[in-house]
Amino acid sequence: MRKKAIAGRKFIKPSYSYLIEKKRDGGEFSQDEIRYVIDSMLDGEMPRFQMAALAMAIYFQGMSAQETATLTEEMMLSGEVIDLSRISKPKIDKYSTGGVGDKTSMVLVPLAAASGVVVPMMCGVDEDFVISTLDKLSAIPGFNTTLSIDKFVKQLTTLNCAIVKQSKEISPAEAVLYELRNATATIQSLPLITGGVLSKKLAEGSEGLVIDVKWGNGSFVRDLEQAKQLARSMTRVGRSMKRRCVALVTDMNQPLGDTVGTGLEVQEAIQLLKGEGPEDLQELVLKLGMEIVRLAGVAGSTLSAKQTVQRHLKDGTALQKFKEMVATQGGDVSYIDSPDKFPVASHVRKLPAPKRGYVHTINAAMIARGVSLLGAGRDGGAAKIDHAVGVSEIKKVGAQVKQGEPLMMIHYNDEAKLESALEYFKAAYRLAPKRPNPTQLIVERVA
Amino acid sequence: MRKKAIAGRKFIKPSYSYLIEKKRDGGEFSQDEIRYVIDSMLDGEMPRFQMAALAMAIYFQGMSAQETATLTEEMMLSGEVIDLSRISKPKIDKYSTGGVGDKTSMVLVPLAAASGVVVPMMCGVDEDFVISTLDKLSAIPGFNTTLSIDKFVKQLTTLNCAIVKQSKEISPAEAVLYELRNATATIQSLPLITGGVLSKKLAEGSEGLVIDVKWGNGSFVRDLEQAKQLARSMTRVGRSMKRRCVALVTDMNQPLGDTVGTGLEVQEAIQLLKGEGPEDLQELVLKLGMEIVRLAGVAGSTLSAKQTVQRHLKDGTALQKFKEMVATQGGDVSYIDSPDKFPVASHVRKLPAPKRGYVHTINAAMIARGVSLLGAGRDGGAAKIDHAVGVSEIKKVGAQVKQGEPLMMIHYNDEAKLESALEYFKAAYRLAPKRPNPTQLIVERVA
Repeated sequence: MRKKAIAGRKFIKPSYSYLIEKKRDGGEFSQDEIRYVIDSMLDGEMPRFQMAALAMAIYFQGMSAQETATLTEEMMLSGEVIDLSRISKPKIDKYSTGGVGDKTSMVLVPLAAASGVVVPMMCGVDEDFVISTLDKLSAIPGFNTTLSIDKFVKQLTTLNCAIVKQSKEISPAEAVLYELRNATATIQSLPLITGGVLSKKLAEGSEGLVIDVKWGNGSFVRDLEQAKQLARSMTRVGRSMKRRCVALVTDMNQPLGDTVGTGLEVQEAIQLLKGEGPEDLQELVLKLGMEIVRLAGVAGSTLSAKQTVQRHLKDGTALQKFKEMVATQGGDVSYIDSPDKFPVASHVRKLPAPKRGYVHTINAAMIARGVSLLGAGRDGGAAKIDHAVGVSEIKKVGAQVKQGEPLMMIHYNDEAKLESALEYFKAAYRLAPKRPNPTQLIVERVA
Repeated sequence: MRKKAIAGRKFIKPSYSYLIEKKRDGGEFSQDEIRYVIDSMLDGEMPRFQMAALAMAIYFQGMSAQETATLTEEMMLSGEVIDLSRISKPKIDKYSTGGVGDKTSMVLVPLAAASGVVVPMMCGVDEDFVISTLDKLSAIPGFNTTLSIDKFVKQLTTLNCAIVKQSKEISPAEAVLYELRNATATIQSLPLITGGVLSKKLAEGSEGLVIDVKWGNGSFVRDLEQAKQLARSMTRVGRSMKRRCVALVTDMNQPLGDTVGTGLEVQEAIQLLKGEGPEDLQELVLKLGMEIVRLAGVAGSTLSAKQTVQRHLKDGTALQKFKEMVATQGGDVSYIDSPDKFPVASHVRKLPAPKRGYVHTINAAMIARGVSLLGAGRDGGAAKIDHAVGVSEIKKVGAQVKQGEPLMMIHYNDEAKLESALEYFKAAYRLAPKRPNPTQLIVERVA
């Protein structure tokens, strides 16, 4: 049907090398040209090596706002677009570019749902060093994240929320392009990130999107300026596709919260759902939650948004919604009621501070890598995730420590794995005699 | 053997995407890394799509002088390197980046050979709109350009010169890379041009190289500054590989000489070998010839170089050498003695000047395209070249014409082909009321 639309407009197919040259020289693609590239990519008609050259040319030359919007829309239309129009409630989703120790999705989704907002969340699998929300949720026995689109929509209707694995029917163009970009050092292209992410998120049927763009050593966006650009690019494209969009640019220069590891993070999420837990996470949950309820129109002012979020955490309705979601998706709810049921590692030891001082910097990516080596991630080649391992009681930037005091506690089941993980944990911490300047968790709001 | 060298130095193979990322970010490759890429490319181990991304990254980030030299050497070593050390005479080759109406190779090779210089010339086939020297020589019945390397060396020993088709055994890496670049808009990368060209030319066994870098609308290098950079890049790399190198940057903003077309150009070359012919070509032959004999050490001073070149044109020894080469390579020498034996087109008509004035600019590429459409090239899809067609008596930039006077004579055999060719010929000429500034044929000498 899309092919015919092209024919109808008498679009003369250019050669792929012409298109590569055009972008190489900084030219702007027409809508027809972008559609043609996406179609040809999906058909397998455009050879992969020409796609790769084009992706690299886009990396260097960028894309205009109009091109990026067109790319997003054409990629979205390459697959299924879920129709949630029969659900009359406001439908808002949340997206994070991914960070170490980030368990906010598990809190925000039921929290928003308890507030009367429908959250149709589909997640990708592990990307790089970040443990996905799906893998964290798999620490709850029985929790099923593979739902058909029909079941997904049904659950949204009855429960307001669901967290499921990205359906293969959603933006297949992004799946093809992401795999290519991953092997050609073109992941970092802002328009390709924007197009890739939004083509998936906007296909889920939500009317709005709250985006958490993380910057720092634990994010794939290392540079603050680039994170701000990405936030602007995504909100702009989202709006041009008639969705309400807000982005927060947030700090990812240390792990979020006190734990990293699947089971440990679920337990920390349960704390947050009770209105407890580490300050940084509480703040992030509050701010992102406020954005969701405001974007949904559930709260009209900042104050009422804050009250709405805090109320649902305090009165237990957010936790109750989480339990309903876990139950509906087949998970064992008793784990939520009694977190001591989560598996415990055979050994727990401290990472001692090598000297006295203040925690000056933490390389979050190294912490993640170490935790992954303990067995909590997929990238260690582990077929099965060890839900007991990870780190807890993480001393954060600015904390004062004495020599020998624990910088964190390491939960492990295997001495050999600990050895290699320790290298990363040790290297991740830098101590200094003076207290560092305080870090700012939420750097910018882009609306 | 080269693989073992890598192993011996304990080179740890990096991932291809790491190498792409390194170049994307402007990093410099080590010798091991370049060798690894070339080897992997030839083995087919490095996927084409990753090569394409790397080529585009190189297009944008360039390569250092050291990287380019290493690339050239590694590409050269990917194939046969001809050993001419048993030939005691000086061995100098000439290379041109390719231009419209350029028939200097057919003159320079026998001219240098007559002067006592061995010229081991291997040529590529048609590139883009330029008719190759090989296709021009094929206008002489029987002329064989497919020689084994053994026969090539034997002919050099007895005759001092040969013009043959590039052997497949020479720089196979360039063959692979060129095909890829051609489809990914990365032809124009200076280091890749340098590496590609020199890896072939320096494998032919010459001790030195005279390079004609053409710039303008009839060259693939449109920009003068880029042509100068290319000249510098090539001479620098040549020298770092212990070859004597000189480059001339020359004008290609109009056809060289008065003719374009295979048979017509051979006839013009014969004129030049008699010390006759159009001024621009005579000047170019003189200047390039002088560079060759000086580089070879046959002439010690500019004056003696000039005298050497002029003498061999005037006294018929250059022409005699050309005939010997034609005869040795199986060509019908009677065509050289009686150029009227070359086939004549069934029709010759003028391209009339649409108004009076001066020839202000000529788009050489359009002339070439038109001649190709007449049947003189390969890119019209013609299986067989029509050696009779082409254009002659080309009015050059600065010429004054009356309305209706011929801008050139068109030799054609087919009315339909003429129609499409005429579009290009007409569009190629721009007339203006004032005489344009004189053009400079030889813009810069880079030694």
